[in-house]
Amino acid sequence: MDIINIRRSVRKYQDKAIEKEKIELILRAAMQAPSARNQQAWRFLVCTQKNKNFELSEATPNMKFLKNAPLVIVFLTSLCDLTVPNMYCQDLSASVENAMLEAASLKIGSCWCGTYPNKERMENVRNIFSLDDNLEPFAVVGFGYPLEDDAFKFIDRYDENKIINVGEE
Amino acid sequence: MDIINIRRSVRKYQDKAIEKEKIELILRAAMQAPSARNQQAWRFLVCTQKNKNFELSEATPNMKFLKNAPLVIVFLTSLCDLTVPNMYCQDLSASVENAMLEAASLKIGSCWCGTYPNKERMENVRNIFSLDDNLEPFAVVGFGYPLEDDAFKFIDRYDENKIINVGEE
Repeated sequence: MDIINIRRSVRKYQDKAIEKEKIELILRAAMQAPSARNQQAWRFLVCTQKNKNFELSEATPNMKFLKNAPLVIVFLTSLCDLTVPNMYCQDLSASVENAMLEAASLKIGSCWCGTYPNKERMENVRNIFSLDDNLEPFAVVGFGYPLEDDAFKFIDRYDENKIINVGEE
Repeated sequence: MDIINIRRSVRKYQDKAIEKEKIELILRAAMQAPSARNQQAWRFLVCTQKNKNFELSEATPNMKFLKNAPLVIVFLTSLCDLTVPNMYCQDLSASVENAMLEAASLKIGSCWCGTYPNKERMENVRNIFSLDDNLEPFAVVGFGYPLEDDAFKFIDRYDENKIINVGEE
């Protein structure tokens, strides 16, 4: 799948809004992710408000690049919907990856800022968006049309030394 | 992206081996996943040995369907390679999702069995494959050509009530 190969972290964005229908496609991809016993205990905060994204960029060191992001999606765990509580990190991560791949297929770059389980980062995000106690910030992802031409350049990460084969007896 | 929409958990497989070149494509996709500070602290145990997959299926309740899986990949965290230890669940999950999407693009079904952080499941997998202490079983994923015709049927999981919009001020 070409898209899996060309997706990379993209932190520099054009000053251009993401079309509403493309935001919907990204959210649809996010919600198609697998989840433990199909719990789907997620919410998606979609922020196109520049002053909020600027606040995020100031709040934590790993989010500085968000100051120019035309779109930020905060992936949230909905704690009251959990039926398999010890597996939500997997569910939400698969959801983030789906969203980023969908974005790449639309020529939109993205970059994942890990939030959970870092308490300080989680608290910063909670405060900026005045989140309910039920919603736990899992990750903050910036999206935008890339500023640089090589944003989707393939970098080969394959390393056969990382494979352990257990073949036929 | 069509592939994101049609990927579903597939637990019933044809008795047909997965071609070596397709296994490599799945592993390549797994290694293209994003990881925190690009740590790539992962290993992939590739098992086509039927008696081992049968052992796995007996070991834990959520892995029963693996008894007929022609291919199992155990996603492993390589603990000694961690540079951002609190984010490896995200990295490995993105890797699993990439592998499952790549498989779907090759008409190969798959199903993710959560292992980490369940200590009993992790210990079972460790014992079956006599894993080094450095390698921690993160997830066990079964792969195979689907037995059923509707294995890639689109089920719409989109729910607009799960979206919180923070628009322009």
